[in-house]
Amino acid sequence: MSSVMKKAKAAKSAKEQLALLSREEKDDALEAMATALTKEASWILAENEKDMQAGRENGLSEALLDRLALTKERIHSIAEGVREVKKLPDPIGDTVRTWERPNGIQIEEVRVPLGVIGMIYEARPNVTADASALCLKSGNPVLLRGSSSAFQTNKAIVDVLHRALDETKLPSLALQLVEDTSREAAHEMLHLTEDLDVIIPRGGASLIQHVVKNASVPVLETGVGNCHVYIDESADDRMGVQIAVNAKTDRPSVCNACETVLIHRDWADQYAASLVEELKAKGVAIRGDDYMQAHFDGITPAETNDWHEEYLNLTVAIRTVPSLNDAIRHIQTYGTGHSEAIVTEETGAADEFMARIDAAALYHNASTRFTDGNEFGFGAEIGISTQKMHVRGPMGLEALTASKYLVRGNGQIKE
Amino acid sequence: MSSVMKKAKAAKSAKEQLALLSREEKDDALEAMATALTKEASWILAENEKDMQAGRENGLSEALLDRLALTKERIHSIAEGVREVKKLPDPIGDTVRTWERPNGIQIEEVRVPLGVIGMIYEARPNVTADASALCLKSGNPVLLRGSSSAFQTNKAIVDVLHRALDETKLPSLALQLVEDTSREAAHEMLHLTEDLDVIIPRGGASLIQHVVKNASVPVLETGVGNCHVYIDESADDRMGVQIAVNAKTDRPSVCNACETVLIHRDWADQYAASLVEELKAKGVAIRGDDYMQAHFDGITPAETNDWHEEYLNLTVAIRTVPSLNDAIRHIQTYGTGHSEAIVTEETGAADEFMARIDAAALYHNASTRFTDGNEFGFGAEIGISTQKMHVRGPMGLEALTASKYLVRGNGQIKE
Repeated sequence: MSSVMKKAKAAKSAKEQLALLSREEKDDALEAMATALTKEASWILAENEKDMQAGRENGLSEALLDRLALTKERIHSIAEGVREVKKLPDPIGDTVRTWERPNGIQIEEVRVPLGVIGMIYEARPNVTADASALCLKSGNPVLLRGSSSAFQTNKAIVDVLHRALDETKLPSLALQLVEDTSREAAHEMLHLTEDLDVIIPRGGASLIQHVVKNASVPVLETGVGNCHVYIDESADDRMGVQIAVNAKTDRPSVCNACETVLIHRDWADQYAASLVEELKAKGVAIRGDDYMQAHFDGITPAETNDWHEEYLNLTVAIRTVPSLNDAIRHIQTYGTGHSEAIVTEETGAADEFMARIDAAALYHNASTRFTDGNEFGFGAEIGISTQKMHVRGPMGLEALTASKYLVRGNGQIKE
Repeated sequence: MSSVMKKAKAAKSAKEQLALLSREEKDDALEAMATALTKEASWILAENEKDMQAGRENGLSEALLDRLALTKERIHSIAEGVREVKKLPDPIGDTVRTWERPNGIQIEEVRVPLGVIGMIYEARPNVTADASALCLKSGNPVLLRGSSSAFQTNKAIVDVLHRALDETKLPSLALQLVEDTSREAAHEMLHLTEDLDVIIPRGGASLIQHVVKNASVPVLETGVGNCHVYIDESADDRMGVQIAVNAKTDRPSVCNACETVLIHRDWADQYAASLVEELKAKGVAIRGDDYMQAHFDGITPAETNDWHEEYLNLTVAIRTVPSLNDAIRHIQTYGTGHSEAIVTEETGAADEFMARIDAAALYHNASTRFTDGNEFGFGAEIGISTQKMHVRGPMGLEALTASKYLVRGNGQIKE
């Protein structure tokens, strides 16, 4: 048996025990995890330095090195993240609904853990602790597979968490880290249908697409976000500018950031100048259609691939459209079903936009940046789902649960 | 572009229009479909006869020929099935929940269609009409792929439905049948991630496993059911016998039928004789453990593979166990997470059984035969899910929906 399969089976062996823990027992374990992370920070930093050194030798980019680097402060905030999860309500055991059938059987639907979760993720080592906390709090054993460039750091974090769990009622077997960081091992993980109930990939588009295309274990797809803000002809001028600028510039590197702004021509004639000015003031590079190029300086011509692009940086594409219908068609063609906003004073236009576009979150007069577990009030999130099955949008603890039916009778048989 | 991909894209092209239809418009379409099936019954029967003839020539088994054969009565009952779906409430547009965040944004979660559904199924031609009705009523275009042995029949049914839909507001493009019945075409369908949102396989275990293992489109896994009835030491004698006999014999060929009966030894000492007697009276062949062989005549020795087997016929495996814990362990080892029953007068034993076993439906003092859309009160079902994501157990119309978030603000941006 391969080492990956062994780890998956070890995680699975803790499934029943973990599913039956009380909220208090799980919260005690999370508190112990948070305390241990802070207490062992120096050792984790020393292990992290090994990854950093190897990264520098292997020519990792500055951006990747920055994502990989830990500091006392970052470890402190990782520990606080675990405590935030501890504070969240425990969904396990909640009754979703109950009803009685004419033959007298009582049916109750209750929330149970989803099962053994496989997490495949890229450099950031904070995911190691975040995902562990979310999975364990919702009663799910987890098999972690981080990137090889963060291996020493991830292993140190998991070792610390294991030692902490050994002092609690939560079985430490429920938390497993894949130590074979080869491609073959990752590939094998995608096919462990007997041991894993779901795989959640977190990282760039190519990692996610690789997992979606190749896994036979069910996947919770998290998201590529080619998000749009459409400024309708009736949009308030300040609101249009503020929402587009906020959605683009508040944090350009995340999936709910805006990539293309669509503007009704009538609004553009009057107010596009102030939008362009404020975007430029924030250092945004603009790729525009013919209209934008004709009216403003310093606009790079937009090509078709710009409408597809998830820039994840301070670049925006701007296209003017003659009608709401054209804006909707553009989003239907290029959108990835993540978050789409319309700014308009006309409720009818907003209703049409929100009904016709198929996305996880549709916004009327608000920024796409709110598609986020904390902003929705779910607490910490394990990712944002862009698929349609199971859960859509921000995935908090409830997204990590399944349900089962408890049927109680007094001897009913099928006639 | 292959013919399969063309069909998938045609179905997808109807997605927006179908999603926006009112309940009345969809119900009118279903009524037209039902009426047309009855009216065109003679032609459908003639086409069905072509499949029957080819089947006889190709040496199809009697059982398969029987599943393939249509009669006026069967067509009538298929049409009535469509009318049953018409009567069900339309989940599309329902508000799941609404809430307000401290910054004043209003979040509403609403039900929307799941998207384009690919159905891959075996011989029974009734699935062609049933699945079409369920998918269309819930606003989902559907791409059907039946088996080649039923092709003429399926094509006739779809032709009739298309002509009926052409007189309604429901776009007939939303219903598509794959006409290329080669393996290659089926394989291609499993990977149409751009056009299909979900694939639902219906048929035998090998078909389902093939789809689960190979599809990159998300799959709703429907069910292999290795279901158990456990008769606890405190079980009422008549209730224990009746539930086990009903679960086994009421309809042995379906997935919620019982395959193995587990019996506490103390109960077996007193009452197993009447269970054996009633099973034999119903023509059931028994494979038993050492205890059963020692105490009763005509028991075939059970091997390990009997504990795994989904017989789907009048065979049952019986194992005696010394404790509730052993029964639970047996089911955890061999069960497929479908339906599991305990017969006991002790609530504590039932609670432990239902908490520790991870299955779609757990029964206390009732037959496993109730895991069914109609018995649960969901109306017609498209299958019984044995996976944990999205939906578990009987899948009615609601299982064919996703949700989206509508977020309404008055200019909120992320600070």
